[in-house]
Amino acid sequence: MEDGRNTPVNIYDIAELAKVSIATVSRVVNGSDKVSPATRRKVEKIIEEVGYTPNAFAKGLGLNTMHTIGIMVPSVADAFMAEAVYNIEQELGQYGYDCLLNCSGFRPEDKKKKLEVLLSKHVDALILIGSTYAGHGNDGAETDYIRGAAKRVPVFVINGNVKGDNVFVTVCDDMSAVADVTERLVRSGRKKVIFLTDSRSYSANKKRRGFEEALARAGLPLSEDRIHYVKNDIRAVRDYLEKNPVTFDAAVATEDAIAIGVMKYAHSVGLRVPEDVSVTGYNNSRMALACEPELSSINNGLAKMCTSTVQRLMAVLDGEDGQTVERKVVIPCAFVERGTTALGK
Amino acid sequence: MEDGRNTPVNIYDIAELAKVSIATVSRVVNGSDKVSPATRRKVEKIIEEVGYTPNAFAKGLGLNTMHTIGIMVPSVADAFMAEAVYNIEQELGQYGYDCLLNCSGFRPEDKKKKLEVLLSKHVDALILIGSTYAGHGNDGAETDYIRGAAKRVPVFVINGNVKGDNVFVTVCDDMSAVADVTERLVRSGRKKVIFLTDSRSYSANKKRRGFEEALARAGLPLSEDRIHYVKNDIRAVRDYLEKNPVTFDAAVATEDAIAIGVMKYAHSVGLRVPEDVSVTGYNNSRMALACEPELSSINNGLAKMCTSTVQRLMAVLDGEDGQTVERKVVIPCAFVERGTTALGK
Repeated sequence: MEDGRNTPVNIYDIAELAKVSIATVSRVVNGSDKVSPATRRKVEKIIEEVGYTPNAFAKGLGLNTMHTIGIMVPSVADAFMAEAVYNIEQELGQYGYDCLLNCSGFRPEDKKKKLEVLLSKHVDALILIGSTYAGHGNDGAETDYIRGAAKRVPVFVINGNVKGDNVFVTVCDDMSAVADVTERLVRSGRKKVIFLTDSRSYSANKKRRGFEEALARAGLPLSEDRIHYVKNDIRAVRDYLEKNPVTFDAAVATEDAIAIGVMKYAHSVGLRVPEDVSVTGYNNSRMALACEPELSSINNGLAKMCTSTVQRLMAVLDGEDGQTVERKVVIPCAFVERGTTALGK
Repeated sequence: MEDGRNTPVNIYDIAELAKVSIATVSRVVNGSDKVSPATRRKVEKIIEEVGYTPNAFAKGLGLNTMHTIGIMVPSVADAFMAEAVYNIEQELGQYGYDCLLNCSGFRPEDKKKKLEVLLSKHVDALILIGSTYAGHGNDGAETDYIRGAAKRVPVFVINGNVKGDNVFVTVCDDMSAVADVTERLVRSGRKKVIFLTDSRSYSANKKRRGFEEALARAGLPLSEDRIHYVKNDIRAVRDYLEKNPVTFDAAVATEDAIAIGVMKYAHSVGLRVPEDVSVTGYNNSRMALACEPELSSINNGLAKMCTSTVQRLMAVLDGEDGQTVERKVVIPCAFVERGTTALGK
């Protein structure tokens, strides 16, 4: 016993040794024709070398995977991410898959560590939610950990763009959405639109670019005091504006909480919303209905991003190692106008 | 191969056959003295009968459990539950445990089904978050599914009270919290306090009882139009009050969104908050800071409930099958006063 000779070799060991997914090992074992001859030979060679005997019970019932998908978010306490996890959990459940959840925070070393934890649990695939996982969007060394994980299982990224084999991304068209809203604010007569964000992530940078391009198209100067980096926290934003007086008649925020912080500031200094100041938020969260007036917000198509991700994930797990599945899907955003703007059509 | 003779018997099979937890099987296998002689004999007999050989590698490294805790919530899209899941995931992570998340919804048949799914994944324990799992709190047949699960793994319930072997509960003192706030509203001069809730769950019923007892102590009549059952939705509450005119000068709500719905109604009919109408919410969610004025809310000690749950769970997994671990812990609530009330001290 102590010499380990009773330790069974399992499907995960084979997948790791052959550097293929467990789905592929499963296909080889079950004689599926959706495997290339080269891959089949490689897997069969390993199986022979290590003396792997597929578990008959598991084989018969198709239980040779855990039917578990690893989900990673920075924090599920965030409303946007909680809703994404909820949508994904519900949709995966319909396919008989369960979720192993990990909250990684935002520090690179923690992301890497938590990803390793999920992989060590033999998940069938990974879904990473949040543009933070895409770093600055330039596919540098900072996202190597994702490409590394994708050598073992398919990796799906929601709201962030990462290139790599076996990496699938679903993003929303943030740049156009912010550009459109900014343009409409200018057209409605606003002279000084400012932009507030809490992040320099891939998605936040796209939003900023949309804002800048809209100003450029309108022939407006991009002065320093147009762009503000703040905390994603209502009171912090209010306090920031009180300490750093900026003249503005419209504010485009990359989070609903930031927009509501602007409204709190406006209220405290006696500016009326939307008469004196227009405000727009992002994500169209429940919070948008709590403030007074209700907040106009960009709906980033979260539900659609989740649906597309799960559908493609299932196609990859069922299919030809992802050769025929779309690597990148872009979901359009929609502006939901409420009481904090008066843009009309 | 097809006759199944290569199918290894694992620790989960033994636990199921012996009707004990995997922790207990692990203790027997590892020679721990924290097992009663009777239990030890029972487990050893099964091990002998089925010819189980503990995996030496797993045994040495203590890997004979999956180190995974099943978490069930009705919906992780709910802010309260998302925060609970986040807290628990973070704390479990510090002990090297991962979370398998399941969102069950509120229908009894779905709760039972989802619980079975989690159990089939060989989790080491279950955490159920939400008073909905406790039914009406009378420990009738409606909570038998929890006692059934507890025969296989320890079950921890947060915010709901269920009695049973191997069932551990953590609740907050909702009744006192609502009674205190109601009493203070009456003492501050409010003549007509109403109560709004969205549920008849164990926890909602305790809140209602707190409200009724405070009125009784103050010698106030409990007329029909004091208690209102509404949807947990800002706009639905506003619409409800517009359609069902009730005279009131204070409202105690069992959810922040309900309280904000009352504020929206007050705003639409020209009542000032808190001058004409006082409003209190529950859970002290992020939403409480979004409305204007900010919402006074009862903080139900969620973070402390989560910490207590995880600490006791670890004690049970490490210890003597829960004999020495507190079965029920009651966490006090705290009232956080903001702009929607003027109660003073």
